[in-house]
Amino acid sequence: MRYERMTPFRVMDLVRQAQAYGDTIHFEVGQPDLPPPPGVKRALGEAVERERFTYTESMGLRELRERIAAHYRHDYGVEVDPARILITPGTSNAFLVAYLLTLEAGGRLGLADPSYPCYPNFAAMVDAEPRFFPVDRSNDYLLGPEDLEGTALDVLHISSPSNPTGTLYDAEALKRLADYCREEGIALISDELYHGLVYGKRAHTALEFSDEAIVINGFSKYFCMPGLRIGWMVVPENLIRPAEIIAQNLFISAPTLSQYAALEAFDYDYLAEVRETFRRRRDYLYEALNPLLPVDAKPDGAFYLWCDVSAYTEDSTAFSRELLEAIHIAVTPGIDFGRHGTATKLRFAYTRKIDHMAEGVARLEKYLKERP
Amino acid sequence: MRYERMTPFRVMDLVRQAQAYGDTIHFEVGQPDLPPPPGVKRALGEAVERERFTYTESMGLRELRERIAAHYRHDYGVEVDPARILITPGTSNAFLVAYLLTLEAGGRLGLADPSYPCYPNFAAMVDAEPRFFPVDRSNDYLLGPEDLEGTALDVLHISSPSNPTGTLYDAEALKRLADYCREEGIALISDELYHGLVYGKRAHTALEFSDEAIVINGFSKYFCMPGLRIGWMVVPENLIRPAEIIAQNLFISAPTLSQYAALEAFDYDYLAEVRETFRRRRDYLYEALNPLLPVDAKPDGAFYLWCDVSAYTEDSTAFSRELLEAIHIAVTPGIDFGRHGTATKLRFAYTRKIDHMAEGVARLEKYLKERP
Repeated sequence: MRYERMTPFRVMDLVRQAQAYGDTIHFEVGQPDLPPPPGVKRALGEAVERERFTYTESMGLRELRERIAAHYRHDYGVEVDPARILITPGTSNAFLVAYLLTLEAGGRLGLADPSYPCYPNFAAMVDAEPRFFPVDRSNDYLLGPEDLEGTALDVLHISSPSNPTGTLYDAEALKRLADYCREEGIALISDELYHGLVYGKRAHTALEFSDEAIVINGFSKYFCMPGLRIGWMVVPENLIRPAEIIAQNLFISAPTLSQYAALEAFDYDYLAEVRETFRRRRDYLYEALNPLLPVDAKPDGAFYLWCDVSAYTEDSTAFSRELLEAIHIAVTPGIDFGRHGTATKLRFAYTRKIDHMAEGVARLEKYLKERP
Repeated sequence: MRYERMTPFRVMDLVRQAQAYGDTIHFEVGQPDLPPPPGVKRALGEAVERERFTYTESMGLRELRERIAAHYRHDYGVEVDPARILITPGTSNAFLVAYLLTLEAGGRLGLADPSYPCYPNFAAMVDAEPRFFPVDRSNDYLLGPEDLEGTALDVLHISSPSNPTGTLYDAEALKRLADYCREEGIALISDELYHGLVYGKRAHTALEFSDEAIVINGFSKYFCMPGLRIGWMVVPENLIRPAEIIAQNLFISAPTLSQYAALEAFDYDYLAEVRETFRRRRDYLYEALNPLLPVDAKPDGAFYLWCDVSAYTEDSTAFSRELLEAIHIAVTPGIDFGRHGTATKLRFAYTRKIDHMAEGVARLEKYLKERP
C-alpha cells in the first residue's frame, strides 16, 4: 500500500521517546519555545468569548488574507492580491494542496537531498515520483539550474531557509531558479516557512521574481504558533479556483480561532525580539558545537545546525539513539532528511534556552571525550 | 490535472453567494447554530490562559483518546482500545487518511449515490476509482450486500445517518454489511459524524460488528464545534502505525486548543438538549415542507431533508439559484451529492431556529403558488 512508500517523520517518534527521561536535553524539537506575540493570546481570548466556533469561508477570513498581503508589502515590498492567498490548517496541508495543483500520478517532483522529510511522503500520497538532487557543503546545500539540467521535471520544490541546514537562497540564486523554471515550464513551489528567522541577511520570497510560483508559509515558526495549526499559501491567478475547490474538500476551512489569532500575529517589534533570541541561540550553539561536531552548512536562518558526526560514526541513527540512551540528549538523525551524506549527520535544533543547550553541550563534550 | 476531476463543494460556494442578501433564509448551512457544551468554552479559555500553543503527539492527546474510548463504552457499550484512536483536524482530513490506508491508485471505492460530495473528490486526490451504487426511496437510501454483488470493491464507504438524506442503518443492516465486507475482503469505512443527532432510534457504530472497520467521527455536528476543526478516527490494530505515519506528515497534530476543548465536549445532559432541539426542528420542517416539496427519505437523523422538486423542475440547480435570487432562500442543489435522481432534489438543512425556517417556508409557499 501507499503508506508503505512513506517514511515515518522520525523526529515525531523521537519526541515521544525523549519523554521517557525526566532530564532530556531537547535538540530535536522543531518548534519555538517562545510564546506568540501578546496580541495573539488576547485575540484568542476574545474569539473564545465571542464564540467564533463556526466555519469560515474555505479561502479563509478576508481580513486575514488582506493582513498577509500587507505583510508582503511590509517585509518584501511586493504587491500580492489577497485573492491569491489561501489560509490553510498549517503548512502541512498546504504542501498537499500544492502537489494536488501541480502533480499527476507519475509526475516528477524535484527535491534537494537532504530536505524536509515530509515532501517525499506527500509525493507518495499523490503517487508522484520524487527526483532527488544531492546538495552538500560544496554548494551550500542549495540548488541551481545547473543541477537540474537534463532532468525533465514537472515541479521543483525548494525551501529557504532550508530545513535541515538553515542555508538561504539569496536574491540572485532565487531569481535564477525562478527564471529557469519559467523557461522550462516547471512549477516552482517555494517553502518559506522559516522566513523571519534569518540572521544578518535578508530573506527573499519567490514572489519577488515570479507570479507563477506557489509560495507556502505559516505561523508555526517565526510567529510561534505551531499548535494553532495555521498557515497560508499564495497561488498564481489561474490556480485560485482549483485551490479553493481542493480546500473545500480537504479541510473545509482552517481553524477559526487560529484565524482570528493570526490577525494579531504581525507584531513586528515582538517578532524582532523573537529573531534576536534565535540569533543569540544560533551564535551560542554554533560556537559551542562546531569544535565537537563540525557544522557542515552555513546556518543563515531557521533554527537548525547540520553537524558532521563522521569522526564518531557511519550510522548517525544508531548514534542518535546512543546519545539519547547514554546521556539523555535528543537529536534528530540525518537520514530523516534524505540519503545524500545523511548517515553521518545529525540535526541540532536550537529551540531551547541557552542554559538548557549548555547542559547538553557539556554532557556531549564529556561523553565524546570518554567514548571508547 | 487531478483537480479537474474534482467538483466544487457547491454548498460552500452557496454560503458565499447567500451573503449577498441581508435577509437570506439559510437552509444550506451544514453546521449547527448552537454553542458547544459550556465546558468547551471554559476549557478553551483555560487552554489559552495556559498557552497551549505547541504541537501534541501526532495521534493526539492521550486523555482525549481515552475520553473518546469512554464515549464508545457509554453510548454503544463497545470497548475500543485508545491506541486505535487517532485525533484528526476535522473529519475531512480523516477521510483522506482512511483512503490513503486502504486505496491504491486505481483502487475501487464503493459509494452510495447520492452521498457526501467530498468522498469522490478524496478519491480523485488518491486516483482511486469511485463506483457509485444508486440508492433511492425504494431502499431508504441505504446499501445492502445485494446491491454490491458482482462488483469487486477494495473499499466500501458508508455514512449513517446519511448526508444528504438523514437515513440510518439499523443494527441488522450494519451487521450484514460488516459481515459481507469481512467475507469479501473489502475494507469498510463508516462515517458516523452525525451520530448523536438521531431521533427516536438508536445509532449503531460499525465497531459493534467489526474490529476491522475504519470509523470516522468528529466534533463538528452533535458537539457543535465545527470551526474548531477536530475529529477522530478508529482504525484496526494493524493500521495504527500506518495511520500515525500518515498523520505525522499530513497534519503533524490536530489543533491543540481544540483538543483540550474536546475533553469537555462529552456533556451528555447538554448534548441531549442539542438532540432535542434538532428533533423539534426536524419535526417542524418535515411537517411544513412535505406538503410543498415532498420529503423523499425517512429522516431519522443528521439535520437534512431530501426533498423531491420534480413537480417544479428537472434542474434543481437552476431552481436553487432561482429561489436564492427570487426569495432569498438558500438551499443546496441535489447534484452536489451525486447523479442518481439528484437533478430533481434539493437538500434542506434544519440548522436554524424554527422562526427563521418558518419565514422561509412562508416565502416558499407564496412563491410556489404564484410561480408561472
